[in-house]
Amino acid sequence: MSIHADRLTALREQLKRQSLDGYVVPLTDEHMSEYVGAYAQRLAWLTGFEGSAGSAVVLADKAAIFTDGRYTIQVREQVSGDHWEYVAVPATSVSAWLAEQVQNGARIGYDPWLHTRGWVEEARAALAAQGAELVPEPSNPIDAIWTDRPAPSSAPLSAYPDDLAGRNAADKRTEIAQWLESKRADAVVLSALDSIAWAFNIRGTDVESTPVALAFAIVHADATADLFVAPEKLTDDVRRHLGNAVRLHPRLAFADALGGYSGKRVVADPAGSVAAIFDALDAGGAKVVAVRDPVVLAKAIKNPAEVAGHEAAQLRDAGALIRFLKWIEQAAPAGGQTELSAAAKLRECREATGQLLDQSFSTISATGPHGAIPHYRVTDESNLPIERGQLFLIDSGGQYLDGTTDITRVVPVGEPTAEMRDRFTRVLKGHIAVATALFPDGTVGAHLDSFARRPLWEAGLDYAHGTGHGVGAYLSVHEGPQRIAAPNYPGGGPTEPLRAGMILSNEPGYYKAGGYGIRIENLILIEPRDIAGADRPMLGFRTLTFVPIERDLINPTLLTPAELEWLNAYHAEVLAKVGPTLDDEHRTWLSAKCAPIS
Amino acid sequence: MSIHADRLTALREQLKRQSLDGYVVPLTDEHMSEYVGAYAQRLAWLTGFEGSAGSAVVLADKAAIFTDGRYTIQVREQVSGDHWEYVAVPATSVSAWLAEQVQNGARIGYDPWLHTRGWVEEARAALAAQGAELVPEPSNPIDAIWTDRPAPSSAPLSAYPDDLAGRNAADKRTEIAQWLESKRADAVVLSALDSIAWAFNIRGTDVESTPVALAFAIVHADATADLFVAPEKLTDDVRRHLGNAVRLHPRLAFADALGGYSGKRVVADPAGSVAAIFDALDAGGAKVVAVRDPVVLAKAIKNPAEVAGHEAAQLRDAGALIRFLKWIEQAAPAGGQTELSAAAKLRECREATGQLLDQSFSTISATGPHGAIPHYRVTDESNLPIERGQLFLIDSGGQYLDGTTDITRVVPVGEPTAEMRDRFTRVLKGHIAVATALFPDGTVGAHLDSFARRPLWEAGLDYAHGTGHGVGAYLSVHEGPQRIAAPNYPGGGPTEPLRAGMILSNEPGYYKAGGYGIRIENLILIEPRDIAGADRPMLGFRTLTFVPIERDLINPTLLTPAELEWLNAYHAEVLAKVGPTLDDEHRTWLSAKCAPIS
Repeated sequence: MSIHADRLTALREQLKRQSLDGYVVPLTDEHMSEYVGAYAQRLAWLTGFEGSAGSAVVLADKAAIFTDGRYTIQVREQVSGDHWEYVAVPATSVSAWLAEQVQNGARIGYDPWLHTRGWVEEARAALAAQGAELVPEPSNPIDAIWTDRPAPSSAPLSAYPDDLAGRNAADKRTEIAQWLESKRADAVVLSALDSIAWAFNIRGTDVESTPVALAFAIVHADATADLFVAPEKLTDDVRRHLGNAVRLHPRLAFADALGGYSGKRVVADPAGSVAAIFDALDAGGAKVVAVRDPVVLAKAIKNPAEVAGHEAAQLRDAGALIRFLKWIEQAAPAGGQTELSAAAKLRECREATGQLLDQSFSTISATGPHGAIPHYRVTDESNLPIERGQLFLIDSGGQYLDGTTDITRVVPVGEPTAEMRDRFTRVLKGHIAVATALFPDGTVGAHLDSFARRPLWEAGLDYAHGTGHGVGAYLSVHEGPQRIAAPNYPGGGPTEPLRAGMILSNEPGYYKAGGYGIRIENLILIEPRDIAGADRPMLGFRTLTFVPIERDLINPTLLTPAELEWLNAYHAEVLAKVGPTLDDEHRTWLSAKCAPIS
Repeated sequence: MSIHADRLTALREQLKRQSLDGYVVPLTDEHMSEYVGAYAQRLAWLTGFEGSAGSAVVLADKAAIFTDGRYTIQVREQVSGDHWEYVAVPATSVSAWLAEQVQNGARIGYDPWLHTRGWVEEARAALAAQGAELVPEPSNPIDAIWTDRPAPSSAPLSAYPDDLAGRNAADKRTEIAQWLESKRADAVVLSALDSIAWAFNIRGTDVESTPVALAFAIVHADATADLFVAPEKLTDDVRRHLGNAVRLHPRLAFADALGGYSGKRVVADPAGSVAAIFDALDAGGAKVVAVRDPVVLAKAIKNPAEVAGHEAAQLRDAGALIRFLKWIEQAAPAGGQTELSAAAKLRECREATGQLLDQSFSTISATGPHGAIPHYRVTDESNLPIERGQLFLIDSGGQYLDGTTDITRVVPVGEPTAEMRDRFTRVLKGHIAVATALFPDGTVGAHLDSFARRPLWEAGLDYAHGTGHGVGAYLSVHEGPQRIAAPNYPGGGPTEPLRAGMILSNEPGYYKAGGYGIRIENLILIEPRDIAGADRPMLGFRTLTFVPIERDLINPTLLTPAELEWLNAYHAEVLAKVGPTLDDEHRTWLSAKCAPIS
């Protein structure tokens, strides 16, 4: 821990040099990314916290780290309580905590390239009420003291094939231009890395788990665009792919370029673009139209080529999962396996497909009590042996050129208890209730969430996470805007209307603290449904993931006839679709796993 | 219609005299009431529209009336299209429409006693963007030309008995004072009429269907209060009941009193208090704390005495309903009955209890196609004969001293079709799914709404209204803050956490335009539920309404065993609870209606 104590001291000295009484350290980058490159891992560097979401505030005599319920345990393991106060969000926000701590006249700094304007306005108001000031400080004090901070990745971009994208980039820009016309706007700023990747049909390797490249873009009403990307990342192939209608500029030229829109109506996304972008547009005299980046919805609604790619990727990934499940079913009870060895084996199974480009996130390989931590990440320090009597939970995904996968399965090591089977079956009932839901076009995700929970609620149980998130097409494994979650889940996702072509996860769970964790996750595609006698357009889900659901954990007496029918039909489809891709040994194993249950 | 054309002309002349280019006419009163006294029926006087929600805008050369989907048909029947444009809300808001119509420099007036500050801010911004001005005009131009406008009611107040209220008014004020302390506030303005009635244990007859009295109140941190009410309404009994800690003032002194809080922290409810209240507090130098009126939640969570009163009122009301249902089952097929005669008969049955004080809203007596209009109100002009082959829908409620009721039942006139039985059974399945729901404490109403819809969604059907609203204790039949409705239903109700003690309606429906309407409505009480093995506090519903659900409309083959069990248990409870209160003839009829279905 002492290295982090030293860094904290160094930061406080740097704050004095910059005449600041405090500084806010978020975990994001200039693109409001969920996963960020090593150069932007300022929170981890300062505190030691390695979770995927959090933030910190450093004052002269106090420092706090803010994490949500997923990281309550992890933050205490990784960050010293001697130097840091642990604060739970959303119960206490950074603004609310700051407002309670600051003195009259205090100057609290923030990096305008790492916060949304909405956050800035809220924090500024909270501080102003206490007589303190929120100060934009683009010269990030951490960067001043982090002497060996990695440079942003210089990895080359690659063109994404038109046949997998389903539409060429010129068509996509034309549609953006038409949208700009409908808004009477002249240009739109694209700053989300996956929006840029999708709009220009490009991919990169600058961020772990997400195949995007560090860039900014401005698309104009004439369907041309400016792309701001480090020149060393551009091969001749990619330059040809982008074409003449895309003007290339260094990434560092972006901030200045925002100053050149005097009198023009320029769209920027209040949720996806950082405050500095709005500030620069304002300063240059642009009329800013704060509405959602038009790529967000276009990207979420997959076209037929993207759906076909997903289907192929899911089948390929299913083969790897099935190899892994057969292995662990035998290896785990035999002893000698650990969370790390299991995760490595799964990676090996995926790599054996010859087409794995990356994992879509760090594999959650969690045995026994670790399964009860929904976002557990195994490390050398936390690694547990997999032991008899436990449930082993594995949540993982692959990045393939044609699609992104995300799947969770649970395996009993030895004989499961009746309680484990009861809980697993309730989770399965919730999973089936979502998979089979029919709903009017435009229904919001929050409206469906309770279907997944009712079987647990009936036993006085629940799970403290959402039921489904969007998934990209060889892009982010967590992709907005849609989400299936409680109506009061933070953020706008649960009130986004669901539309045909969107892909979501379907992942109810149950967690017994100190005992075990259960989650059953498939990806599902929204499709139109023709229903005889319907008086409105209806939608339903088609499951895209084809891996057996552990039969030894199911108590069939808890299933209704319709649920049993769904399960048997699902397993029959798994066998029919994935069986032919397997060798005899694995096909035989799969046949047994997919045999009808009654 | 010509009387309304004359009034429109007169208003335009008055606007000229007041130097206004337009005026906004809402349907509410100084208390943001849903139902208003005759003196505040300005929209109906001006336009002829008699629905319960709407607004109008009058410009020099154009006038528009704004209504929601419930009144699409009615507004066209009652308001002349020669003089008025029909505008659908929420698709187009008053502000958005105004912004499209007004000229640069226009002055559009509004009455600050009839709009929330939120509305004023939105409308002001929309007009400002067009170079027009929104002008507060407390001298309402309609009042200037409505020469025979009724005076506000001068009916006397009455004290509400402590044994029915469950707590005396001094206790309630003490609790409000403690709440003020927690907010570090000096006083709270109560302007919602039902909040005042509940806080002071008083009732009145100033508003149709809701037993409230026109008044304002300010409760102080020392648990004393100022009550502003017309002196002629105060009997000696009521003065004694209110006691010395409540200082009495004329209602008209309220506005001036708001100016006397310089430097004090005063709470006012941004959703429930009109803009004029905020303006007057600001002008007097008060520090306004804009948070919800503390009575709203206290009133929603019924105490044991209020629950006991409700139970007694529901049983009494059930007896009246059963008399009515037996009558209509025989009278309707015999012919000669109408929507009006049926409504009159139901009122007679309720009055026969000897305890009916008022209807809780205008009875919706709707046969055949009228049933498909969820808020249909029968008039001499619309009255239809009840005919064989129709479904007859009746949605009604009573105000009793111990409780407020609200119930909907549907009766087939002759033999129903298979489609009617299918639809009715699906609505019943949704009703049962809500009635039997178990959910964690604090779950929001929007989270439960889909349970009511799933059986309809499975057939491609839905209904375009919420599933449940709060109900008062001898107060408003529509009481906030909780609501069971879609997550994107307008207003905050669906995201209000549900708490033990709240009473809601449970009223899914199905409407076949031009054909028939179905709705099954009971009131339900939220109770804590002990569930063996539960890992969190759980809640469930107890049904309070005990009237048989029409068996001839049920297709039992569509019900699951659990649903059939619920239905038979419900009917057994109806017979056990209400049977003993009936004469032999009605008890015999009820027994047959409640016999088990298999």
